[in-house]
Amino acid sequence: MDTAGDGNSAYGHKAFKRSKSHFADRVTADARDGWPVEAGRYRLVVSRACPWASRAVISRRLLGLEDALSMGIADPIQDDRSWRFTLDPEGRDPVLGIRYLSEAYDKRESDYPGGVSVPALVDVPSGKLVTNDYQQLTLDLATEWTALHREGAPDLYPRALRDEIDTVMADVYEDVNNGVYRAGFAADQEEYEEACAGVFRRLDLLTPRLARQRYLVGDTITEADIRLFTTLVRFDAVYHGHFKCNRWKLTENEVLWAYVRDLYQTPGFGDTVDFDHIKRHYYQVHSGINPTGIVPLGPDLSGWLTPHHRAELGGRPFGDGTPPGPPPAAEQVPARGRP
Amino acid sequence: MDTAGDGNSAYGHKAFKRSKSHFADRVTADARDGWPVEAGRYRLVVSRACPWASRAVISRRLLGLEDALSMGIADPIQDDRSWRFTLDPEGRDPVLGIRYLSEAYDKRESDYPGGVSVPALVDVPSGKLVTNDYQQLTLDLATEWTALHREGAPDLYPRALRDEIDTVMADVYEDVNNGVYRAGFAADQEEYEEACAGVFRRLDLLTPRLARQRYLVGDTITEADIRLFTTLVRFDAVYHGHFKCNRWKLTENEVLWAYVRDLYQTPGFGDTVDFDHIKRHYYQVHSGINPTGIVPLGPDLSGWLTPHHRAELGGRPFGDGTPPGPPPAAEQVPARGRP
Repeated sequence: MDTAGDGNSAYGHKAFKRSKSHFADRVTADARDGWPVEAGRYRLVVSRACPWASRAVISRRLLGLEDALSMGIADPIQDDRSWRFTLDPEGRDPVLGIRYLSEAYDKRESDYPGGVSVPALVDVPSGKLVTNDYQQLTLDLATEWTALHREGAPDLYPRALRDEIDTVMADVYEDVNNGVYRAGFAADQEEYEEACAGVFRRLDLLTPRLARQRYLVGDTITEADIRLFTTLVRFDAVYHGHFKCNRWKLTENEVLWAYVRDLYQTPGFGDTVDFDHIKRHYYQVHSGINPTGIVPLGPDLSGWLTPHHRAELGGRPFGDGTPPGPPPAAEQVPARGRP
Repeated sequence: MDTAGDGNSAYGHKAFKRSKSHFADRVTADARDGWPVEAGRYRLVVSRACPWASRAVISRRLLGLEDALSMGIADPIQDDRSWRFTLDPEGRDPVLGIRYLSEAYDKRESDYPGGVSVPALVDVPSGKLVTNDYQQLTLDLATEWTALHREGAPDLYPRALRDEIDTVMADVYEDVNNGVYRAGFAADQEEYEEACAGVFRRLDLLTPRLARQRYLVGDTITEADIRLFTTLVRFDAVYHGHFKCNRWKLTENEVLWAYVRDLYQTPGFGDTVDFDHIKRHYYQVHSGINPTGIVPLGPDLSGWLTPHHRAELGGRPFGDGTPPGPPPAAEQVPARGRP
């Protein structure tokens, strides 16, 4: 749900408010919104910089949907027309044939005045945006796209645990996923302090839970872990300095640092993370809080690959399933984005 | 040597350049520049935010010069007329009777066009600035003001070690003391990267040295330690985020973190440090790199008071001397500036 305006629009308001997704059609097994689950029909457009899009990138990997659902990766630096395909040959997405993601939005609704955000699911035959609802998208990948899951795909949203997962995710969303943005784009000191304190209050509450158990809910990886991971993996690299969430670095919290390294080292998580895209996006796009556009050299990333010893807590990462294989060659993160 | 323009003037140039002190008269035992060492005659004007001024604050404490050389503390937030005495009753320095430090500069040289910087040594009878030469000032306090030193004052610039001290200080000045400023006020990515890499290259070089020995030169505290301390004590609080010197936090370097905590816990060092002044100064004054003026809540300061175990390395902090007593009541750092 990163829109081009995130960086500056916040300053016109009293408080940073994340806009609701405007397009909320769902792709389901029963096609109730007119969009059936179908291999090869849709394209997932993401930025590897964006935590909201990265949820879908990880879910797609864990569930083995790479062949059924192709993926377009936008340039981490938006211009005044928002997300663009400048990483692709001739600056066009090779499947959709467009230069800007906004073209898919415009095909869906002409003169759409809202922000252009990722993740975006686009119908390939018509070129129309189907949904940019980052909250529902991953739940549907987990529960509606099951016919296309790989063999051994984990159950990321187990029915028996949904109430607990939903409760944890709601708190994590408010205080952590979105809390870092409210801190970073705060219009004044009071608003910043409230948001920043909330981030660390929630992380402090999660710490003893994650000291006892390997994953947030149950004994396997769930949607709740994916959503916490996408914020934590960016924490020291951008939220600590750029968004001033700096009570401590994740590396200073033994439990959370081990938790996030464990996930990072799990197939389907770390192999989707591009620290180069992440850092350049935040530091170069948000000119309202980083007017020089200079991107920091740090932090040192070598720690991400160190042993985490989380297996000692028990847990079965993929439940009755198996880890995914390596990512397709075309989707491997370049060396400069890795530790 | 913090001038009001530090934050913004840098942007007009290709590279950040620290201006030389314009007034370099020396107060000496033989009064060769017309300024004799004399108790009660001069006032030291500082900001507790400024690392260059803080050298003099620490030297004055270690040498026990508080009674002989009074001290005025400027507001950490300069306005367009630079350093001001808004912390004092009616906004006037109680000894000099002025509202702005610039008045002492103007008395010395009318229509002086340069920056107004601290530390500044002012002649009380005439109200004229004597010197703002931060490099020479502390050396003179250590070697020329000896008649006024307290009993048990340490030798901060021992004759036999001066070559080594000067060499260490020159490297630390270029890469660390001034290096963090060159990184923070860099005009472009290349300039920033060169400066930031230099900061950490030097800190990496100092680490094994300080793993072997308690202090930088010899086995006692010297001027070299004072000058490294004033940068390191600000490192995680401001240079890490605000100046983007973020390869690692000092708390992540076991040796340097213990070294700086050892000094912080030594009488005369930590009792001069006001983290509130430090953070507000950097984050609120440098609008060119922090346009919102928001001051971060972090970092957590509680670690500053934890055991450092540096005494195991040997060393005699004050040589044949003794530690100073507590600071005068009027000069104690308020609770909000301490861990």
